Amino acid sequence: METTANSSTKTQQVINPSQLLDHWQGHRSLTRRVIEAFPEDKLFEFSIGGMRPFGEMTLELLAIAAPGIKEIATGKTVEFNEKIDHGKSKAKILELWDEATGEINTHWATVKPERFQDKIKTFGQYEGTVQSSVFYFIDNEIHHRGQGYVYLRALGIEPPAFWER
Amino acid sequence: METTANSSTKTQQVINPSQLLDHWQGHRSLTRRVIEAFPEDKLFEFSIGGMRPFGEMTLELLAIAAPGIKEIATGKTVEFNEKIDHGKSKAKILELWDEATGEINTHWATVKPERFQDKIKTFGQYEGTVQSSVFYFIDNEIHHRGQGYVYLRALGIEPPAFWER
Repeated sequence: METTANSSTKTQQVINPSQLLDHWQGHRSLTRRVIEAFPEDKLFEFSIGGMRPFGEMTLELLAIAAPGIKEIATGKTVEFNEKIDHGKSKAKILELWDEATGEINTHWATVKPERFQDKIKTFGQYEGTVQSSVFYFIDNEIHHRGQGYVYLRALGIEPPAFWER
Repeated sequence: METTANSSTKTQQVINPSQLLDHWQGHRSLTRRVIEAFPEDKLFEFSIGGMRPFGEMTLELLAIAAPGIKEIATGKTVEFNEKIDHGKSKAKILELWDEATGEINTHWATVKPERFQDKIKTFGQYEGTVQSSVFYFIDNEIHHRGQGYVYLRALGIEPPAFWER
């Protein structure tokens, strides 16, 4: 009976937790390829219109993703901290990216499906629900990655296809 | 009893259909403000790195959003068509944008919650589920709007805040 109930619940989900994790990690996999596509010096120095170099944007994304889901999973407030030691090394950014991938998977597994509608405050200040916060994390990454695409095009570099995850 | 069952189903949703519509329309409202922020000539002519002007990107977004959800709602294949007559008029683009807002709401209301996991093929060619297609529509808009932000910054124009929907 319990199996039937669970399976029925899953069928009714607009998007279930496992699909949402895949969706998020699919986007993170694409962002990783965008980071890889940058020549190392351009990653930390190239910018347009006074915006941050893409490398700095990735520090924001790193400061949000794993710490954000850890905060959701554990209920313990995390301070937003994008001052990450990277020594202007692309390899270091990618290493941190991959560590975050594992951390996200680990914490995600502990978030029960019924928690996604819970009201929370991320980084001690941003009010929302678990679902709205997760979608904000994802959308913010898509937004900045789209900016990275323009940087790559301006540098004469073909970015990875948007639809490949 | 039915009320109880419905309310229990809603509670268990990671994101329910009404929230997903608000999420989508919130993004569309922000994109509308990004279109508005462009000087009319720059909307159709300014570009970076050989990419399309932002006005052309909005034609893609218009070709996807309302036709896409109409296809999902009705089950009738729609041809992807971004050859939209706009006469290089920002007012026309905004008018089409607002028409699409209403069409999306109308068609969305007819999509039953249990349909989001159905397998479909959008525009007769892109395989996915209803939910993955809707998220693709939204993500693609965020992606191109992020590019519009770079164009605006390159033009010395402050874009609307990303977190305001």
